[in-house]
Amino acid sequence: MAVYTDVGSDDLTGFLAAYDVGELRALKGIAEGVENSNYLVTTTGGTFILTLYERRVAEGDLPFFLALLRHLAGKGLPCPVPVVARDGVALRRLADRPACLFPFLEGLSVRRPQPLHCAALGRALAELHLGTADFSGRRPNALSLAGWHMLASETAARADTVHPGLAHLIADELVQLSARWPSGLPDGVIHADLFPDNVFFIGERLSGLIDFYFACNDLLAYDLAICLNAWCFEGPTTFNVTKARAMTAAYDAVRKLSAPEIAALPVLARGAALRFLLTRLTDWLNHDPEAFVRPKDPREYIHKLQFHRGAAGPADYGLAP
Amino acid sequence: MAVYTDVGSDDLTGFLAAYDVGELRALKGIAEGVENSNYLVTTTGGTFILTLYERRVAEGDLPFFLALLRHLAGKGLPCPVPVVARDGVALRRLADRPACLFPFLEGLSVRRPQPLHCAALGRALAELHLGTADFSGRRPNALSLAGWHMLASETAARADTVHPGLAHLIADELVQLSARWPSGLPDGVIHADLFPDNVFFIGERLSGLIDFYFACNDLLAYDLAICLNAWCFEGPTTFNVTKARAMTAAYDAVRKLSAPEIAALPVLARGAALRFLLTRLTDWLNHDPEAFVRPKDPREYIHKLQFHRGAAGPADYGLAP
Repeated sequence: MAVYTDVGSDDLTGFLAAYDVGELRALKGIAEGVENSNYLVTTTGGTFILTLYERRVAEGDLPFFLALLRHLAGKGLPCPVPVVARDGVALRRLADRPACLFPFLEGLSVRRPQPLHCAALGRALAELHLGTADFSGRRPNALSLAGWHMLASETAARADTVHPGLAHLIADELVQLSARWPSGLPDGVIHADLFPDNVFFIGERLSGLIDFYFACNDLLAYDLAICLNAWCFEGPTTFNVTKARAMTAAYDAVRKLSAPEIAALPVLARGAALRFLLTRLTDWLNHDPEAFVRPKDPREYIHKLQFHRGAAGPADYGLAP
Repeated sequence: MAVYTDVGSDDLTGFLAAYDVGELRALKGIAEGVENSNYLVTTTGGTFILTLYERRVAEGDLPFFLALLRHLAGKGLPCPVPVVARDGVALRRLADRPACLFPFLEGLSVRRPQPLHCAALGRALAELHLGTADFSGRRPNALSLAGWHMLASETAARADTVHPGLAHLIADELVQLSARWPSGLPDGVIHADLFPDNVFFIGERLSGLIDFYFACNDLLAYDLAICLNAWCFEGPTTFNVTKARAMTAAYDAVRKLSAPEIAALPVLARGAALRFLLTRLTDWLNHDPEAFVRPKDPREYIHKLQFHRGAAGPADYGLAP
């Protein structure tokens, strides 16, 4: 939760003059997102979210993200569509940052996802994957095997200060994943960070998908593996196979999982757990105590990784092999 | 800016069931206020601010604050009126905290107040003082002379780590203020923290007064002295007498300042500067680097205090003596 860049009403009034959104009526920094600064902006024309992109998002990637949002919204997915100013441009600058205005999306994140939420997420994820099939943008995934090797070497010396034996666990996992990582599976543009925080519901209806700033090209089933990690554990050690079955079955009903994808899911789930373990570990070790944001505990993903290492096969994820 | 207490949509849905505000549609933590946690709450019935009162606000004082808001709104002042649940109760509990729902007030804080803003503030402050004349609640000001002595003794040993000579300056100022602090001036309920952050404008119209959680009984002119400190400096060292004249003249047009009040204003301004110097110094010295909130720099108020110590009289504040 953070507002890194301070925006005053005078600055924003000037910024909004480029848009047909009416006059500014209220401005509140919102404590959401750890990568960017977000403001709730009320005008006589509506309610908006203003996002200022901070250093962790590469400015050169922003056209890809914004085009992806427009593309997916055009396919009927409930993602925020960048508001275009009168000159036709959506990506602008404010307070020396790239900035973009989005309509405010109603909906609530669920803290304790139930099987029905997991099913709705599975359906939406499959629709997202089908929807990106004809999207021309490309962005390599910096947080795949090569990226994990780099993060592992950067954190190796201090990893055991977080958890005894962690450096060895990571090194061993990397050896195994490098040997087993699948190739030839269907790929495309994936969300890559579709945690419950980034999904809104109104009642039982999935009403919003946000925060596409890790979206990239990778294996589609890897995106599902990320969601299994993010949605189907109850606490770090208990995996709820009913939720996993609800998610994967709903996904499969929209986009049929191939036999090789199903067979690869356990190893993809290990990779997804390692990815979040490594990025959280990096943030944890490099945390500036003066920063607003508390880093997330990496140890949650040690337990999740151990679960996946012990899994016997796709059946442990509710999938018929 | 902070959200200290985490509220999930499940908890809030239960909380809102006591109200006639419709169904929850969105929930965002907002980065505003340093004493309490605030959320923007959107329902099918409207938009609200949910405030959870944190440790720095004494729970026993909340009925006073909420009654004051209702009283002032009844007099036509643009303050938020606590939303009452179906059982007639406005002050409730959520996430183990006292909690209250308020309507969302439109309006924007000004960063660089102009004379017209200072005039609008002066009028509103005088209306606030007239409006509290028949308010029966009472709350002593814990941050007056006795409180300053306490904060001074608590910070004396480390004050010079912030600014050389600061402990001596504070001790000397306390001796002088103790000798010169006025008595017999009109008193009543004051806001006591009416900084630009706590005042909303729509265009040139003052549209909202918020954050009454320091309101207390004290000298009315002391409230004006706080506002002179908070609104009329440009940077910490330059006092803009045009803004001060606009503020005090507008105040005087609504509530006539007596000759003793005018004569006392310079010493009241010194007291107000010392009050914010001491509380900021306390927060600065006791800052937990793990906390979300960055403390405000106390040195700003050293410069303001020095200005007031050098002032020749009411004319330096735009007032005819």
